[in-house]
Amino acid sequence: MTTQAPGHTRLRVTRAGIDTYQQPVVYMHRDCEVCRSEGFAAMTRVRLDVGARTLVATLNVVVDDRLGLDEVALSEAAWTLLDPMPDALARVRHAEPASSAGALRAKVFGARLDDAQYLALVQDVMESRLSDLELAAFVTASAGDRLDNAETTSLTRAMIAVGQRLDWGDGPVLDKHCVGGLPGNRTTPIVVAIVAALGYRIPKTSSRAITSPAGTADTMEVMAPVALDLAAMRRVVEREGGCIVWGGNVRLSPADDILIRVQRPLDFDSDGQLVASVLSKKIAAGSTHVLIDMPVGPTAKVRGEAAAHSLGTRLAHTAGALGLQLGIHRSDGSQPVGRGIGPALEAHDVLKVLRNAADAPADLRERALALSAALLDMAPGSNAGTGLERARGVLDSGAALAKFLAICEAQGGFREPPRAAFTADVPAPASGRIAAIDNRRLAKLAKLAGAPTSPTAGLETGLRIGDTVERGQPMMTLHAESPGELAYALEHAATLQPFVLGEVP
Amino acid sequence: MTTQAPGHTRLRVTRAGIDTYQQPVVYMHRDCEVCRSEGFAAMTRVRLDVGARTLVATLNVVVDDRLGLDEVALSEAAWTLLDPMPDALARVRHAEPASSAGALRAKVFGARLDDAQYLALVQDVMESRLSDLELAAFVTASAGDRLDNAETTSLTRAMIAVGQRLDWGDGPVLDKHCVGGLPGNRTTPIVVAIVAALGYRIPKTSSRAITSPAGTADTMEVMAPVALDLAAMRRVVEREGGCIVWGGNVRLSPADDILIRVQRPLDFDSDGQLVASVLSKKIAAGSTHVLIDMPVGPTAKVRGEAAAHSLGTRLAHTAGALGLQLGIHRSDGSQPVGRGIGPALEAHDVLKVLRNAADAPADLRERALALSAALLDMAPGSNAGTGLERARGVLDSGAALAKFLAICEAQGGFREPPRAAFTADVPAPASGRIAAIDNRRLAKLAKLAGAPTSPTAGLETGLRIGDTVERGQPMMTLHAESPGELAYALEHAATLQPFVLGEVP
Repeated sequence: MTTQAPGHTRLRVTRAGIDTYQQPVVYMHRDCEVCRSEGFAAMTRVRLDVGARTLVATLNVVVDDRLGLDEVALSEAAWTLLDPMPDALARVRHAEPASSAGALRAKVFGARLDDAQYLALVQDVMESRLSDLELAAFVTASAGDRLDNAETTSLTRAMIAVGQRLDWGDGPVLDKHCVGGLPGNRTTPIVVAIVAALGYRIPKTSSRAITSPAGTADTMEVMAPVALDLAAMRRVVEREGGCIVWGGNVRLSPADDILIRVQRPLDFDSDGQLVASVLSKKIAAGSTHVLIDMPVGPTAKVRGEAAAHSLGTRLAHTAGALGLQLGIHRSDGSQPVGRGIGPALEAHDVLKVLRNAADAPADLRERALALSAALLDMAPGSNAGTGLERARGVLDSGAALAKFLAICEAQGGFREPPRAAFTADVPAPASGRIAAIDNRRLAKLAKLAGAPTSPTAGLETGLRIGDTVERGQPMMTLHAESPGELAYALEHAATLQPFVLGEVP
Repeated sequence: MTTQAPGHTRLRVTRAGIDTYQQPVVYMHRDCEVCRSEGFAAMTRVRLDVGARTLVATLNVVVDDRLGLDEVALSEAAWTLLDPMPDALARVRHAEPASSAGALRAKVFGARLDDAQYLALVQDVMESRLSDLELAAFVTASAGDRLDNAETTSLTRAMIAVGQRLDWGDGPVLDKHCVGGLPGNRTTPIVVAIVAALGYRIPKTSSRAITSPAGTADTMEVMAPVALDLAAMRRVVEREGGCIVWGGNVRLSPADDILIRVQRPLDFDSDGQLVASVLSKKIAAGSTHVLIDMPVGPTAKVRGEAAAHSLGTRLAHTAGALGLQLGIHRSDGSQPVGRGIGPALEAHDVLKVLRNAADAPADLRERALALSAALLDMAPGSNAGTGLERARGVLDSGAALAKFLAICEAQGGFREPPRAAFTADVPAPASGRIAAIDNRRLAKLAKLAGAPTSPTAGLETGLRIGDTVERGQPMMTLHAESPGELAYALEHAATLQPFVLGEVP
């Protein structure tokens, strides 16, 4: 035993080479002096001090000789957060409870929290002072309608406060957002092209897929670079009026990106957290007028009238409190949009619409026009009711296509989307009339074929509710980048049948 | 790319040498073919099949060459659960959602669950089919009074069903349990000795410290072995009538031991989960008559009258529904009991009481006698009101001491508790009269000195509310096993002052 007081020993900081997603984890040897003197065990929350930098992380304990006794090894997330110098030494001790632990506890026990409490919570989320278990508790305690309107606004305000915020000077800044759940509903690139072609500013940030076969950022990425930083994004918008970039590099509402790591696996809907997520990103992006596309259908994200009303009211309340003009466009969420599901397949649909191709999917075109029209009609100074005509004008004339290509060039260069090397048709198991389509199963099949990791993977189908099929006729075509993945998806196509067949009337 | 369908590749099963506490984690290389073809990423829930055995675990992704591309490495918990043969090969794929995921979701959204749903949940807890995030959601959704009486009974029943259950044949089986929060309140070894000396059966299982400086099992372990398995425990009770063993090896209500891994760090009280935890262990142990010691005080676990009433009602309801006779003994929870806080220091207090030593702590003796009396008065066939006299009789006569030593011998042999090599007094910062004592700070200081990891560490104090102290007079003595730990605790003693001093009246 040493006579040095524990807690004064420094450990060498090394890289563990382990990806634990966004949760910072550190590894120390079971027999390391600091573990023993501090009474550390696996899952202890520890604090590292390296010079003036601090990191709070969860401890995993190494029990064999792969780690030295004088070493603290960092997971990839911990390494990125601490960003240590070579040969750095760390002091490691018990982490103090997060300052927002009291607010979290109060929320778990049903209290309403105020602005200051949500700000403390979100700051601790940002600094990884809350463990994943505590984040899970926060998500659980916010599930359903457990945040009221005032709390939703407080959370939104806090999420804006901890990130960057763009200022575009005078004039309206338009944006649109889809609450999701509809495969192939890739209207964003078309809407941005139309609205920017008409001279409006529309700086769109999009997400990659979280649980779906493609996010807008994934689809856009097969046509142009999307991982722009804030300065590059600003240059694109200043030049072309619009952009379609991935939100992950611009750090608008970054707390949201951290919460997603527990929201995704738990998958508990929370209207309050959904609204805070969407509106914080829009307000941080400097938007003044936002249109929400809300598909409603039994297998969409919003499943019925009551849910749509409740979510719409909450969105309107928080937008109003924070000075954002908000419109909500409800649409049919009972079946997919366009033909392709998967990043490149959806990009082909988008380009066909922009190019006015003879075989462009009519439903995608009509939805993009309707959304553009609604957004244009919201903009200050426009004559209400003229939006549709103006939108159709620039789409039909090719001005929207030209704007889209110019945006792609400004983002780093346009490229034609590739096509998968391997395809297979899935035949109808029986004859009948399509009575319903399960969007979730379609999405699942596209993912089994490799989307979005394999950008050309996914599926195509032109079938819609009311169509009749003959037994053996192809219902959809699977696309994959390897025969193995194709076989895998094909194997599941029978049990994940997305088409509900009824009698032919 | 291979033409073999993904999911058919087998990986070599190796040991990662990493302790992640009870959460099973597996490590695979980022570039491993299975990760790529299945679209695995860090935190993906995966299922391993090795022959007929299955394990569900959380994936961490290795990004350097410390792991082979053909390898899946298991954390210590995963290794123990899967228990693979040498050279085992595993098929790894996405885990299906746990069958209880729907019940968990319903509970999160505020539904009441029934017997079958709690059984499904607890079975999935046992088979590690729920991730730590899902366990955190379950704990959060059960916080406070969110389980009603019927749900508490359903959960208790489910926790009994998934573990072993003891049957002692005819006759009463007595037990006691303290809901906790009072440092030094180590009555159990004395009560068991008294009750067993009077010829009753009292098979006591105890826990190790979770967040406190000593659990009963930690204290008992400095005097006798406690890590007995079920067969050994049964032999001790059949021979001596009583035992005091660690519950961890006997697997009564083992789901509780798993839930603790998230309950401990989150520390959200749940009356429903507390009652299920306590009563499931008692009923699984075959107890028929159980006395609950419930200290009530501002820094005890139960903080006031309303909380005591609510918890008492819930305990009585579930006990009644499951056919268990239950008594509740409320006691003063405003200050510590005995002189020592820490495993060995508390053992010395226990032995002094059993030995009728002149310097035995009177408060510990009186509490142990009162609890023994209440338990004896509950037993069938006893004359109510005679318990105290009978308890005092066997304690004063030395029969309780003899029984305690005999139980220790049966458990593997009695030993005198050791003493720490290093001690230091903490002087009073001012003169005054003790107005209040913070039990939580006392516990924290004992832990900073090394308890319970260092069994002789902790602190001693004889001061009680109402006592007066002079500035500079020792208020407590810290005990540590190294000068470093002693210095560490001493350093914090000033800021963690547990004694609230008022004016001398």
